[in-house]
Amino acid sequence: MTRFELDARLAADTEEIGVLPLSRVLLMKDSTYPWCVLVPSRPGIREMHELEGGDQQQLMSEITAVSSALQREFAADKMNVAALGNQVPQLHVHVIVRYTTDPAWPTPIWGRQPVAPYSPEELQQQLARIRAAFENIPGFRSRL
Amino acid sequence: MTRFELDARLAADTEEIGVLPLSRVLLMKDSTYPWCVLVPSRPGIREMHELEGGDQQQLMSEITAVSSALQREFAADKMNVAALGNQVPQLHVHVIVRYTTDPAWPTPIWGRQPVAPYSPEELQQQLARIRAAFENIPGFRSRL
Repeated sequence: MTRFELDARLAADTEEIGVLPLSRVLLMKDSTYPWCVLVPSRPGIREMHELEGGDQQQLMSEITAVSSALQREFAADKMNVAALGNQVPQLHVHVIVRYTTDPAWPTPIWGRQPVAPYSPEELQQQLARIRAAFENIPGFRSRL
Repeated sequence: MTRFELDARLAADTEEIGVLPLSRVLLMKDSTYPWCVLVPSRPGIREMHELEGGDQQQLMSEITAVSSALQREFAADKMNVAALGNQVPQLHVHVIVRYTTDPAWPTPIWGRQPVAPYSPEELQQQLARIRAAFENIPGFRSRL
């Protein structure tokens, strides 16, 4: 059985926040939005419906826990959750904080703005902030 | 307790395919894409994480059943699943068939093309096709 390996493009565009029982929890390196990505660590999965039933349920638990924690921590106006995968087929679920004042509002964020990188300092601050926000999510751990 | 009522904008933009135990199952009246929308019939819900735990799990089951059935029926290259809600806050989950040849590929579909209405005949054909594709989904029924 093939081992799970994070897609190279996802690895390049993100920094790891930590892990949940099923998913890697990643921060998209675009400072425009607080933007997390969950990647279930199962090889060869492109669609949520390809996961086994127990993993589907676990994924939903993880999505909602992350979404709820981000909404609270960042005082989101709205959460956006999406599994698209047109460019990177490895199943990955975006969980994004939206504000009515953000540059893409009210449209979805993809392709609306060039990526605005974090400075190294901002990146560490954002990671620390999100790790703290996630510390009570069952099974969450940072692998630092 | 407030009764659930489908948001007027969703009602205007869609035709009902049927119902599942939790969700209304709707067809977006844009013939560019085979595009379904699941609307959990719980009042006052804006985010998936606001649903009770049992409803979250049921929603995941319904999303994956619909996604799998559409992928098979339409020979999708990729499925796109998203809960956004920036313009219509009532929780609704898009489940969309994508092809590498469709007009928006590989970007997400929202806002890329003007809506292409179905003719009345095409609409009935599409509804019938999807109802047939969903008939084995547990709890699905058409309310015709």
